[in-house]
Amino acid sequence: MTEFETGYPSVRQIQTFIRDQLDVEVKLMTGDTLTGKVVWQDTHCLCLQDASEQMVTVWRQAIAYHKTVS
Amino acid sequence: MTEFETGYPSVRQIQTFIRDQLDVEVKLMTGDTLTGKVVWQDTHCLCLQDASEQMVTVWRQAIAYHKTVS
Amino acid sequence: MTEFETGYPSVRQIQTFIRDQLDVEVKLMTGDTLTGKVVWQDTHCLCLQDASEQMVTVWRQAIAYHKTVS
Amino acid sequence: MTEFETGYPSVRQIQTFIRDQLDVEVKLMTGDTLTGKVVWQDTHCLCLQDASEQMVTVWRQAIAYHKTVS
Amino acid sequence: MTEFETGYPSVRQIQTFIRDQLDVEVKLMTGDTLTGKVVWQDTHCLCLQDASEQMVTVWRQAIAYHKTVS
Amino acid sequence: MTEFETGYPSVRQIQTFIRDQLDVEVKLMTGDTLTGKVVWQDTHCLCLQDASEQMVTVWRQAIAYHKTVS
Repeated sequence: MTEFETGYPSVRQIQTFIRDQLDVEVKLMTGDTLTGKVVWQDTHCLCLQDASEQMVTVWRQAIAYHKTVS
Repeated sequence: MTEFETGYPSVRQIQTFIRDQLDVEVKLMTGDTLTGKVVWQDTHCLCLQDASEQMVTVWRQAIAYHKTVS
Repeated sequence: MTEFETGYPSVRQIQTFIRDQLDVEVKLMTGDTLTGKVVWQDTHCLCLQDASEQMVTVWRQAIAYHKTVS
Repeated sequence: MTEFETGYPSVRQIQTFIRDQLDVEVKLMTGDTLTGKVVWQDTHCLCLQDASEQMVTVWRQAIAYHKTVS
Repeated sequence: MTEFETGYPSVRQIQTFIRDQLDVEVKLMTGDTLTGKVVWQDTHCLCLQDASEQMVTVWRQAIAYHKTVS
Repeated sequence: MTEFETGYPSVRQIQTFIRDQLDVEVKLMTGDTLTGKVVWQDTHCLCLQDASEQMVTVWRQAIAYHKTVS
């Protein structure tokens, strides 16, 4: 990752989600809930791939919480 | 781009959208959804051109997520 | 402008709006839409003059998107 | 003011409101509208004194727009 | 206080509230209103003790305005 | 903790919650209330483990207030 702090547990947690291709549910400030696998993250965004293979780029500033789903 | 970090995947993704003139749907914190082609981006904003050729300048701070539409 | 970055397209776009006295519609995070001519901008705010000559100082942090109206 | 940038038009505008004891209407992100005279400002807040002499400290982060009222 | 700017009126105002054990009403971005005495403040939060002695840690980022109540 | 400021009361308070395995209620900007034990914190997030052992990563930017529950 470019100039991004991988020392943080929250960043490493998402790296684990990417590596293990876990399904993640992201609750946004708008009230929307998005679900998918995380494809990449950077300082600004997370990119999710949903069940229909659609890529959705979620802005970190808009995230309230996230969790894995099984 | 002026003093803007093109090393980030999220920034490069939008550069690709600009180059390929893809239609993008942007969901905002207000609940609004805007659709158009991205014309430029900078640190503060993205500029979209909608189907009626209207330019709309979207502030990054207000974006919840975005995705391409086909 | 004092310590403000005029190299950004988004800042220059608003300078053009000021110079050309264009009518601008600003959509806020609150859901409010304000319309007027931009009189000045700085790092924190844009100042709009509406049709009744009332000055309204809009905080950048609250802007979702803006566009010209004709 | 301590370490606060008086070179900005938006900061000077509020200094004028303080000096001239103008009534100001402040619209907040919450949808609330507060009205009063600005007593002081700093980097974080504006302090308003309303018609009943109550002091209300408004956080800049929560302001959508403001204007004078007559 | 650790690395926190006591030169600001807004910070000193809250220090006064702490010293004088004043009852403070805090209006949040969520629309919630919390009432209590401020026990401490730091860069991120204010800690309130409500009438039932419950400690509530309020995040500055979520505050719209505050005022004393009598 | 990596590059994180443990001198702040708000950070130390949460460290205490982690050490003592206290149940914490977190009210978010979205209006959601999450309850659980804090497992870790970093600059960006708090990780909660709820009663069903589900881990939920809460983004600091989304927190309005928190308190212990008994």
